[in-house]
Amino acid sequence: MHRPVLEFWYEFASTYSYLAAMRIEAAAEEAGVALLWRPFLLGPIFAAQGWTTSPFNLFPGKGRYMWRDMEREAARLGLPFYRPDPFPQNGLLAARIALLGGDHGWGPAFTRAVYTAEFGQGRDISDPVVLSELLTELGVDATSALEKAETDANKTRLRRIGEEAQSRGIFGAPTFFAEDSEMFWGNDRLERALEWVVSDRARRTDFVV
Amino acid sequence: MHRPVLEFWYEFASTYSYLAAMRIEAAAEEAGVALLWRPFLLGPIFAAQGWTTSPFNLFPGKGRYMWRDMEREAARLGLPFYRPDPFPQNGLLAARIALLGGDHGWGPAFTRAVYTAEFGQGRDISDPVVLSELLTELGVDATSALEKAETDANKTRLRRIGEEAQSRGIFGAPTFFAEDSEMFWGNDRLERALEWVVSDRARRTDFVV
Repeated sequence: MHRPVLEFWYEFASTYSYLAAMRIEAAAEEAGVALLWRPFLLGPIFAAQGWTTSPFNLFPGKGRYMWRDMEREAARLGLPFYRPDPFPQNGLLAARIALLGGDHGWGPAFTRAVYTAEFGQGRDISDPVVLSELLTELGVDATSALEKAETDANKTRLRRIGEEAQSRGIFGAPTFFAEDSEMFWGNDRLERALEWVVSDRARRTDFVV
Repeated sequence: MHRPVLEFWYEFASTYSYLAAMRIEAAAEEAGVALLWRPFLLGPIFAAQGWTTSPFNLFPGKGRYMWRDMEREAARLGLPFYRPDPFPQNGLLAARIALLGGDHGWGPAFTRAVYTAEFGQGRDISDPVVLSELLTELGVDATSALEKAETDANKTRLRRIGEEAQSRGIFGAPTFFAEDSEMFWGNDRLERALEWVVSDRARRTDFVV
């Protein structure tokens, strides 16, 4: 029997997506859950409710708290943490490349590399040179990957994923979906999401037996 | 030596404050931490950023998710959960009474009674009759308590607390403050807040030794 699947929706500009991305593989492995890595853009979802930047910029009190909380939570997980400048970073090209990487097996590794560059080292993840370096370090042909990432077909695909995110009720990142469409939002809900996937699958298997 | 203290700031309309209020005493006891129960109103803080209702009403996608998450989290804690109608409830009078109760030892029990009436039974917590019943059940003279709660002095005191909340950077509820002013937001951060208080106290005691 196949392992139950959890969808992991993440946005490269999102601080808490960084924490989730760096720990999700080990957590899923331990729970016996397979992952579907789903890069997407929050920008259009925020824009639809009239926001032109991150809510952490729009609401400074919440923003100040988030930066402090990220410091604490990153330290807890043993992760480096650098506050990107500017924030939010433009993750469009990185998301297009990550989408492509999903087809070729290097999506998760590329995703972690981007987050580490952004939040662990303070590098500019909108810069094709930076992204090319990350790809090269992963043994991926950077020139070819960038070319394919920028094709109309790949751009359209990312746009469709954005529409899917919106229609499924995503309002922030990271967001997790169980097989029965149960939704969990935030790095703090990763464990709950994994538990749900496992117990939901067990429930359905009971019926089959 | 006195036990380290955690400040627990809560708003009666707040769903996640309900979860925190119902479990904080046991959690603090286990951690060896004393609690300062601090009822306050979020309304003026929201109003200052142009919001006239709960963000869960202003941002319907987030609101829909919150109700589902509350169902799950309440079930996890073995708590009943009823979605108040209207939401948010007006917790002004309840907060004034809770403030008074803090001086007389029945603040925490009254707080739990209000949250249970609101989120466990769907009762209207702006209704003085409901609040009187809760007070009577706690053995408190309801007529006298309501009278004292509505004095100018008590009203002013609650207003000052709102100003304190704003000046200390509170933007939501529940919020916890450690003795060194470290801030933690949300029911999900209660454990972190308790750990912080305990380890901060241990750190400072080391220096004294």
